[in-house]
Amino acid sequence: EVSFDPKEHQHLRYNPLRDSWVLVSAHRMKRPWAGQVEKPPEEHIPRHDPCNPLCPGNTRANGEVNPDYDSTFVFGNDFPALQPDAPDPGSNQHPLFQSKAARGVCKVMCFHPWSDITLPLMKKEEVVKVIDKWTELVEELGATYPWVQIFENKGAMMGCSNPHPHCQVWASNFLPNEPALSDRCQRAYYQKHGEPLLLQYAKQEAERKERVVVESSDWLAVVPYWATWPYQTLLLPRRHILRISDLRAEEREGLADIMKRLLTKYDNLFEVSFPYSMGWHGAPTGPYLKEDNSHWQLHAHYYPPLLRSASVKKFMVGYEMLAQEQRDLTPEQAAEKLRNLPEEHYKTREN
Amino acid sequence: EVSFDPKEHQHLRYNPLRDSWVLVSAHRMKRPWAGQVEKPPEEHIPRHDPCNPLCPGNTRANGEVNPDYDSTFVFGNDFPALQPDAPDPGSNQHPLFQSKAARGVCKVMCFHPWSDITLPLMKKEEVVKVIDKWTELVEELGATYPWVQIFENKGAMMGCSNPHPHCQVWASNFLPNEPALSDRCQRAYYQKHGEPLLLQYAKQEAERKERVVVESSDWLAVVPYWATWPYQTLLLPRRHILRISDLRAEEREGLADIMKRLLTKYDNLFEVSFPYSMGWHGAPTGPYLKEDNSHWQLHAHYYPPLLRSASVKKFMVGYEMLAQEQRDLTPEQAAEKLRNLPEEHYKTREN
Ligand SMILES: O=P(O)(O)O[C@H]1O[C@H](CO)[C@@H](O)[C@H](O)[C@H]1O
Ligand SMILES: O=P(O)(O)O[C@H]1O[C@H](CO)[C@@H](O)[C@H](O)[C@H]1O
Repeated sequence: EVSFDPKEHQHLRYNPLRDSWVLVSAHRMKRPWAGQVEKPPEEHIPRHDPCNPLCPGNTRANGEVNPDYDSTFVFGNDFPALQPDAPDPGSNQHPLFQSKAARGVCKVMCFHPWSDITLPLMKKEEVVKVIDKWTELVEELGATYPWVQIFENKGAMMGCSNPHPHCQVWASNFLPNEPALSDRCQRAYYQKHGEPLLLQYAKQEAERKERVVVESSDWLAVVPYWATWPYQTLLLPRRHILRISDLRAEEREGLADIMKRLLTKYDNLFEVSFPYSMGWHGAPTGPYLKEDNSHWQLHAHYYPPLLRSASVKKFMVGYEMLAQEQRDLTPEQAAEKLRNLPEEHYKTREN
Repeated sequence: EVSFDPKEHQHLRYNPLRDSWVLVSAHRMKRPWAGQVEKPPEEHIPRHDPCNPLCPGNTRANGEVNPDYDSTFVFGNDFPALQPDAPDPGSNQHPLFQSKAARGVCKVMCFHPWSDITLPLMKKEEVVKVIDKWTELVEELGATYPWVQIFENKGAMMGCSNPHPHCQVWASNFLPNEPALSDRCQRAYYQKHGEPLLLQYAKQEAERKERVVVESSDWLAVVPYWATWPYQTLLLPRRHILRISDLRAEEREGLADIMKRLLTKYDNLFEVSFPYSMGWHGAPTGPYLKEDNSHWQLHAHYYPPLLRSASVKKFMVGYEMLAQEQRDLTPEQAAEKLRNLPEEHYKTREN
């Protein structure tokens, strides 16, 4: 009998945050790639582009002029998927044709006045300002909206249509699918085990070490045991924290630091500005502020598409869309690669 | 009070097959697109390429020589994500670090000896042969495996690395996430309403008409009420049919016909060979063959990525990955566009 080796033998892993499974077939990395090759991320971006609606002092689509901002800058998305008012589709519906009202706001947040900079290359104090602004937005929008989704689509490969460093914040009058599922899973775990799922998970990973990418006294970034994207990571505080707005000043500083370290490793992996979608999940807000949310633990998900090189991504297509997500290297292999990369950014090393 | 108009007012729609919601914000199509533009699908593919491992008479990676096939041709994937034997990861696991054995087979199936042809341009009798082979494979692999996933990744945009017309068939010793979810949803609906979900749905859509793309006496293709991809379609038989292997000869012929009609419309939409991932879902097999699966109805999902043109796709990224899927045109708008397209293929019209 051959003994089980996750690098050689396909297997399923359980994702306790989504109550689903991922197929891990690491031996598959051996196949040659003759498929689509992406244009690697653009490397020569002007610091200030007079035509870019995200730069300081420029005019946006709706005629508004951006202030001459020197830190973060937040404005309403000019083409929002969610608006504060929308009529109700009404009730009395067939069970197979159900719709509901959706209301909310969509904001855009610039991280920095320069277009040619990214989070890992920004100063720590500048990243702290980004975190402070996230906190403010969660407090402001979360006062009424049950869910405030902070997310960043980085790179053209992730559908980002503007190279200026920015993220988006969409708040809604409903709990979207993903947080609703995560809420259910964390609640069930808490009820069964008496401890928040992700608090227990962070402790285990800090001990097991094999999936840790970077860590500090307050924070931990791992390739989760159940990662689906090749270099997916989960960023977690070590202390029980429900929402980003509950972070202490020193934890926000620690977060800026670990984000810079994680994102520097990402960029160093293929020596490109690493594309990804990332976002924060914390306990729901609005009406949920009055409820017990002890089962929640704040965390960020990073979902990068690249697999083999700066231009070959992992396609989550046929089998993944219709049956089950599948990955081609083990989370431990991905974590080891990232962990062993230098913490100095390749761009600053060059000089 | 403004009255509700799905084309103007954002709303949520319920997907009864996945027990989740999609955000429909049709007004958002108005935003300009400055993001990534894809290379449109390759148009000049040689009929026979001596280097293509999928062509008749050529040698594959493992040294095997393809027969001089003149219809369909099935062989084992040379880099399978699932193999028949793999050791068990063992039990006695921490609840946050659970893994399971995965076993199965991965096959590749060529549709036709020519590389420069696609399903909509093949003769009806040739498409019937494809369906016959699907049936055979489901019977053969489904005799023991609980799930046999037939899927086609078409086009480089969908991660397809070979232009030769082909699909894949992956059979597994487990019920993957998507069919497991669909099974639960269909079962619950059947228990509550006493009729299979998709049988009731097909009847409703045939009456309502606004989401129908093509129909025949036996088959119906609609942009489902809950579609997430812009031009997603659902292909359904009108009669209660559990599995593709239960189709009568004339239903297989009707299927070949409606597939040709649907895929011709897809190609005509942007006058390119339309990329998509598609796949069949039917009642589970193997040990499930002995159980009552009356809640199931056979169906195929088509998930095409394109949104605005042959080169601008819909990115399912940040908000979609972290919160909820979102679409930029209503399913009714998409269905109307497809319905109004000619049923003659743009390539045969050219001559
Ligand atoms: O098997 P192929 O065509 O080499 O690979 C393609 O389809 C697979 C199944 O959907 C995916 O896992 C791969 O990411 C994709 O590139
Ligand atoms: O809002 P943006 O950057 O224009 O658009 C991008 O992010 C959105 C939110 O994830 C997606 O719905 C779009 O498909 C994507 O292109």
